[in-house]
Amino acid sequence: MVEIKKNKQILLKDYVVGNLKEIHMEIRSLDVPMMIPEKGGLLLKNLYLSWDGYTRVRMSKPNPNNYANSFVPGSVIDCYGVSQVIDSRHQDFHVGDLVWGITGCEHFTLLPSPLDLTKIKYTDDSIPLSYYTGILGMPGLTAYVGFHEICSPKKGESVYVSAAFGAIGQLVGQFAKLMGCYVVGSAGTKEKVELLKNKFGFDDAFNYKEEQDLTVALKRCFPEGIDIYFENVGGRMLDAVLVNMNVHGRIAVCGLISQYNLTEHDGVHNLFCMVTKRIRMQGFIEPDYQHMYPQFLELVVQYIREGKIVYMEDMVEGLEEAPSALIGVFSGRNVGKQVVRINHND
Amino acid sequence: MVEIKKNKQILLKDYVVGNLKEIHMEIRSLDVPMMIPEKGGLLLKNLYLSWDGYTRVRMSKPNPNNYANSFVPGSVIDCYGVSQVIDSRHQDFHVGDLVWGITGCEHFTLLPSPLDLTKIKYTDDSIPLSYYTGILGMPGLTAYVGFHEICSPKKGESVYVSAAFGAIGQLVGQFAKLMGCYVVGSAGTKEKVELLKNKFGFDDAFNYKEEQDLTVALKRCFPEGIDIYFENVGGRMLDAVLVNMNVHGRIAVCGLISQYNLTEHDGVHNLFCMVTKRIRMQGFIEPDYQHMYPQFLELVVQYIREGKIVYMEDMVEGLEEAPSALIGVFSGRNVGKQVVRINHND
Repeated sequence: MVEIKKNKQILLKDYVVGNLKEIHMEIRSLDVPMMIPEKGGLLLKNLYLSWDGYTRVRMSKPNPNNYANSFVPGSVIDCYGVSQVIDSRHQDFHVGDLVWGITGCEHFTLLPSPLDLTKIKYTDDSIPLSYYTGILGMPGLTAYVGFHEICSPKKGESVYVSAAFGAIGQLVGQFAKLMGCYVVGSAGTKEKVELLKNKFGFDDAFNYKEEQDLTVALKRCFPEGIDIYFENVGGRMLDAVLVNMNVHGRIAVCGLISQYNLTEHDGVHNLFCMVTKRIRMQGFIEPDYQHMYPQFLELVVQYIREGKIVYMEDMVEGLEEAPSALIGVFSGRNVGKQVVRINHND
Repeated sequence: MVEIKKNKQILLKDYVVGNLKEIHMEIRSLDVPMMIPEKGGLLLKNLYLSWDGYTRVRMSKPNPNNYANSFVPGSVIDCYGVSQVIDSRHQDFHVGDLVWGITGCEHFTLLPSPLDLTKIKYTDDSIPLSYYTGILGMPGLTAYVGFHEICSPKKGESVYVSAAFGAIGQLVGQFAKLMGCYVVGSAGTKEKVELLKNKFGFDDAFNYKEEQDLTVALKRCFPEGIDIYFENVGGRMLDAVLVNMNVHGRIAVCGLISQYNLTEHDGVHNLFCMVTKRIRMQGFIEPDYQHMYPQFLELVVQYIREGKIVYMEDMVEGLEEAPSALIGVFSGRNVGKQVVRINHND
């Protein structure tokens, strides 16, 4: 039996309405010892926690239109993470195993079942463990299936990615470039725009916060129109895209991060373009495509090792920094995939 | 050479902004004789003219986001119609041939080319000529491909049709019933609601004008949710549908008739449901599917003769009644497909 640890956790204090703030979360130190798992369960030491757009969605009141259950006020927030098994009563998992999947925002997590965990296959100098919160985890598979399965891309097509510097966007742009598409991304700072072009190989990029008129900005970047839009943002960005889409264009709706902190979502006014341009718009979520994870993993690990794909993370250190880092995801403060490294200083 | 006729025409006076009114159209009697066609051209006597939602779209200022060219102010409006060839300088068309396709809103039309015309194959007591403006014309093929090609329907699925009494909606509902789906339609009068249920065989129907809350109305009609939505309306109806859709639902966007008279389209606020429910929404127009017309025609003529499908038209008599009839299409005054019969009293 492993040494029993005390714990530190992030709790949701109450359902969030409007802008997410630090007061909505509480950091709690537990002096009671961790229990040992029941039969079939695991005790995890969490190493990297992942902050994603969908975390905010789960902080709102329960709503049948959400894809995931809301968190329970007063309870520990859960999230994707990378963890090490430190005690196991499940036959397929052993002490020392590294796993990724859904865990708690806390130092140690007792899971009754490893249903949402995947054993980590590759780690080496070129494949940091934290990548399993991003490029090799949920955001990576989301980008891959969203682009290849939902967008039906063809070589030479023009692709627009909003929130292009996020955990998913930076990958969509690179997948599109590998396919021979013309790719433009948007982000919220000059620094990110430069990195999109110089580090990630986007053909062009713009700072949406500096554009007077998004419709004009897209027209400038896509004089021949947009064939594929990878939608991470929503609201007025979608309206501007719709009028710039080409006939038979495709829109993969991955998320609408501009909307998650709003009490009422912005109206989208240009849906008539769906008809006139015969656009296909399709929402999707990664869990529907988990059967594709093994082939995705092999391909992307190879891309990483060959230097064909790069990935940028924004890593903060320590659970105390996690609430502020999560808030930053919705203002675009993070530069790359937002990860929280914990439990490294014991 | 045929006797040269004088003509009566409907012209667009100027681009329309906001609600379409009679003052936007002018009826002109021409005392000058009709010319004989150039080589390759035809002279048509128009028998039935079709008023469709898209006619209003073409009355707005030219806009690159429209699917069809705007009419030219001061010129004759064109529309779908059924006509007889009265003079021909095209080898494939002969005097006396009956055709359907795009013609002018006038008694006689001189066409430089019959590119947009189809020769009429079937007419008999069970197949009125006017049906080629509706069930056997553009609206019919629109309903057929929209439902069968875009909605990917399966037996037993639940289907919602808005503007269900329109030229297209009444057919979508019947196609869906023939496939074994559960079908609910909405319309704007008690009379239409009763006919949807009793004449067209919809499982249920409601009067959207009498509902306080469309979301609640749809929840009542679809306690298990909507699998397929055939979208003819837009605006707040789409918002209400989105929250009632099932996971992996499909929305075929055929038109947004509630929006055509608006200077700014209503905002749609619930697009996040696209993600959470993995909805596919697809716009389409009938011209992309004209290769399917022959198989469609054979099938639907058989359905009509066997009494498996019925069709209801709202017929007005005379070109003078046409402007008022077109305006009625956007307030839902028409009961069934709006047709204008002309040239029958010479």
